[in-house]
Amino acid sequence: MTGEPHFGKVTLIGIGLIGSSIARALRQLPLAGTVVAADRSEEVIQRVRELGFADEATTDMGAAVADADLVIACVPVGAMGAVAEAIGPHLKAGAIVSDVGSTKGSVVAQMQQHLPAGVHFIPAHPVAGTEHSGPDSGFPELFHGRWCILTPPEGEDAAAVEKLAAFWQALGSKIEVMSPEHHDLVLAITSHVPHLIAYNIVGTASDLEQVTEGEVIKFSAGGFRDFTRIAASDPTMWRDVFLHNKTAVLEVLGRFTEDLIALQRNIRWGEGQELFDLFTRTRAIRRSIIDQRQDTADPDFGRGRK
Amino acid sequence: MTGEPHFGKVTLIGIGLIGSSIARALRQLPLAGTVVAADRSEEVIQRVRELGFADEATTDMGAAVADADLVIACVPVGAMGAVAEAIGPHLKAGAIVSDVGSTKGSVVAQMQQHLPAGVHFIPAHPVAGTEHSGPDSGFPELFHGRWCILTPPEGEDAAAVEKLAAFWQALGSKIEVMSPEHHDLVLAITSHVPHLIAYNIVGTASDLEQVTEGEVIKFSAGGFRDFTRIAASDPTMWRDVFLHNKTAVLEVLGRFTEDLIALQRNIRWGEGQELFDLFTRTRAIRRSIIDQRQDTADPDFGRGRK
Repeated sequence: MTGEPHFGKVTLIGIGLIGSSIARALRQLPLAGTVVAADRSEEVIQRVRELGFADEATTDMGAAVADADLVIACVPVGAMGAVAEAIGPHLKAGAIVSDVGSTKGSVVAQMQQHLPAGVHFIPAHPVAGTEHSGPDSGFPELFHGRWCILTPPEGEDAAAVEKLAAFWQALGSKIEVMSPEHHDLVLAITSHVPHLIAYNIVGTASDLEQVTEGEVIKFSAGGFRDFTRIAASDPTMWRDVFLHNKTAVLEVLGRFTEDLIALQRNIRWGEGQELFDLFTRTRAIRRSIIDQRQDTADPDFGRGRK
Repeated sequence: MTGEPHFGKVTLIGIGLIGSSIARALRQLPLAGTVVAADRSEEVIQRVRELGFADEATTDMGAAVADADLVIACVPVGAMGAVAEAIGPHLKAGAIVSDVGSTKGSVVAQMQQHLPAGVHFIPAHPVAGTEHSGPDSGFPELFHGRWCILTPPEGEDAAAVEKLAAFWQALGSKIEVMSPEHHDLVLAITSHVPHLIAYNIVGTASDLEQVTEGEVIKFSAGGFRDFTRIAASDPTMWRDVFLHNKTAVLEVLGRFTEDLIALQRNIRWGEGQELFDLFTRTRAIRRSIIDQRQDTADPDFGRGRK
């Protein structure tokens, strides 16, 4: 894709991990004439001013998007409709409106209705993040080597799509284009259900009465601690993800539970070969992830060695 | 604990990740006069000779333990009975026999019957490891800052227990003493069930027909890849763990599934507050793990930043 990634004015709405990472990257890269940070929280806006990564910072959504060439909504997916409603009347013709939400079908359903004709609406999802949240947690390299999935509506202006793709490429991302429905299924498997499972096992473990919480934490290096990282992700963001990708999450979760029950039966009946075969197959998946540079090959994520 | 950690002859049986890590540490520390490596595999013994971290290397278990002051069985828990049977007649009086198995009740049940009177049998479990296996994967710092759980039988010689504790402390471990039954429950929660869940979700994801395996791997950075690390652990070792800690694993798994079904119902009925409350509680657990230095606070395990 060969679009020219420069925009005169870029407005980021919602300055958490993702919004503040984009803003920080725009301080280093020649992609925007002016960067405006908008957030409904006065406290966040105050912090943005202290951190100094935006040219303007405001809680006034309408003023923030006036004359903007690119507007990116970086709020939890449950808040996308309200953002679109607030900014819709203030958008200029030809502006590109995008987002960074982890669900796409529900974002389209919420936002499109509030956006005026003449605006290019191109939903996006940078598959990047950490377990930390808030304006202090961002860093400009967050998107390096990570995928950014675009889900443009059919018939959307190709030049606008290419320009947004070029912008994300300049931030370090690799681009993939797919439908919102396919996105929501793929991410249910690779992100949403894994997060739910992690939240659940951390919850179960912390509940267990026979064992003090102290012991669960003390001996967490046996495997449990790997789950706690993603179970520390932003509660509001993830509540919204599950409520907004219900169909795909419930479908994948049904399969997961079915498989787990079968495994439970293997254990109860001492069917060791079935366990061994699964554990061999999963090891191969890990190798593929490392071969495709989607993770580090360092033992124990590199935590083990000094 | 103040035992003197030096042994004249230390024999390690089974030279994988753990056995080879102990051997490598003994090359750096003044804890053993002689280190003997034993393994049933000729190929492993050949590799041990090439790597040069033992004074002797042999497939003859009986010869390996003759005159040994400390014998540590570092084999999958399903093989502990066979090891005890092979070495029992060759042990000298006063020797300490230990192991590194991830289950303790079943190790006691398998080994004790084969060990002669006059030998100190002190089961142990260093809660340390990586997803890699085999004699090449070990490193001497593996046990640094990690817990080693001892489960000595009631009435075992206190001096022998202290000496083994001092040995593990010299390898960098922190010592905890508990009963085999309590160990097996705590580890079911903090290690065994998390591994089973990880194996299961990686299996479910790789099965999903609507989505190519390529996409599951491609977008794994959304959370899935965190699970693949522990789902790449040694298949034989983990098959044995589940078959040998059946009762506790099935009990904890039952609770996990129950909690997951409740969460599934929350999603289906749009009960966002319940989700938010759980996700807030799990975030606090993560903070405790980091406060107790059981994991790194680096975002994304430190993978995100260049």
